[in-house]
Amino acid sequence: MEKANNISMVSIRRLPKYYRYLEELMDRDVSKISSKELGSIMGFTASQIRQDLNNFGGFGQQGYGYNVKELHDAIGKILGLDKEYKVIIIGAGNLGQALANYNNFGKAGFKCIAMFDKNPKMIGLKIRDAEVIDSDRLCSFLRENHVDIAIIATNAEAAQEVTQNATGCGVKTIWNFTNTDIEVPEDVIVENVHLIESLFTLSFLMNNR
Amino acid sequence: MEKANNISMVSIRRLPKYYRYLEELMDRDVSKISSKELGSIMGFTASQIRQDLNNFGGFGQQGYGYNVKELHDAIGKILGLDKEYKVIIIGAGNLGQALANYNNFGKAGFKCIAMFDKNPKMIGLKIRDAEVIDSDRLCSFLRENHVDIAIIATNAEAAQEVTQNATGCGVKTIWNFTNTDIEVPEDVIVENVHLIESLFTLSFLMNNR
Repeated sequence: MEKANNISMVSIRRLPKYYRYLEELMDRDVSKISSKELGSIMGFTASQIRQDLNNFGGFGQQGYGYNVKELHDAIGKILGLDKEYKVIIIGAGNLGQALANYNNFGKAGFKCIAMFDKNPKMIGLKIRDAEVIDSDRLCSFLRENHVDIAIIATNAEAAQEVTQNATGCGVKTIWNFTNTDIEVPEDVIVENVHLIESLFTLSFLMNNR
Repeated sequence: MEKANNISMVSIRRLPKYYRYLEELMDRDVSKISSKELGSIMGFTASQIRQDLNNFGGFGQQGYGYNVKELHDAIGKILGLDKEYKVIIIGAGNLGQALANYNNFGKAGFKCIAMFDKNPKMIGLKIRDAEVIDSDRLCSFLRENHVDIAIIATNAEAAQEVTQNATGCGVKTIWNFTNTDIEVPEDVIVENVHLIESLFTLSFLMNNR
C-alpha cells in the first residue's frame, strides 16, 4: 500500500465521493468548477478540497478552478476505474444474489463471473452472467480463473472458513458483507460492509435525537 | 441529538462493535473481561475502551473488569435494542428484497412491515411479512401505521423524490442505500450505506497495495 501508506484512510474514502459528485456535474454539463463551489456542493471547505486533491497529485490551477471532466477521469484512474475486474460472490443467499444482480457494480467494471454456495438447491442457478457453483469447487475455480475480488456474503459463522479457502487459493482482495470480522494474511486487503452496525448506529441516533 | 451532540460520531459508531464482540464473548461463555483483554480482541487500546465506555455512563470497576452480560445489555439499551421498530422499504428491487429477507434485522427487533414500489408487476408480492404496496399509497400508509424507519432502496434518480414523500408524511429516520446523497428536513436523521463508495475504496487499495 505504497500510496495508501502516506494518505489517510479518511482522505481515501472521500475520493469515491469526489468521483460521484463530478459525475453528477458532468451530467449537468458543468465543465469547470472552483474548489469553493465544489466544497459547497459536497459540504467541505475549499481548503479541504484543495488539500485532498493535492494528496493525489494536484489538479486545477489557481484562479481557474478544476476542469470537471479531467478531474473526474483523473480520480477515476486513481481509483482504478479505468480497468475491469473479475469478482466472485461466496454465499448465494438473498444478499449474495442481490449483489450479483446489482447493475451499478457491473457498469463500473466489476463483473461477477461466478457465485459459490454449499446448498445443493442453489447450484446451477444463474444470475446475470454468474452461475452458482458448489463451494467445494472454489479452489479449483480460483486456480483456473483469475479473480480480483471475492465478496463474502455467507452467514457470520461460515465467514472465516470461506475466507481462508479463498485466500488460501490466491484471492488477495475481500469485500466482507458478513456481520463479523475476518482474519486474513497480511498481504490481503479487506473492506467491510457491516450493515447491522450501520442499522444500530441509526437506532442510537434515533433514540438520542 | 442530546447525547449524540456531546459524543463524537466515531465513538458512537464503535458502540455496535462493542455490542457484537460482547455477544460473541457471551456465546463463548466468557462472563468477565478486562479493558485490556477486550481491547486486544477488538484491536483498540485498553484506555480507548475505558474512554469510550465512560462516554456512555461508565461501566466496570477498577481492577475487576467488566461483567460481559451486564455491559452487553447496557450497550444494547443505549443503542435502543431493547425495543421493537417498524420499518418500511421503498424500492422492491433486488436490494430492497434482499434487505426485507435479511433475517438479522428482524432478529434484532427491526421488523419490515411493508415495501413500496411503483412497478405494477411487483405490487402484491410478499417477502416474509411484508407485502409490496403501490408507491402511490405510501402517504396514506404512513398516516395509518406508525413507521420508525424508511429504507430507501430505489435507484439514485428516484431517491430524492421518495425521500420527500416519506418525510413529508411523517418519517423521521431514513436508512439510505442509494448511490446519492439525499436532502431532508433538519429533524430527520439519515444514515447512508454507499455500497459503490465502499467498492471504489477497495479498488483504490487494491491498486495501491
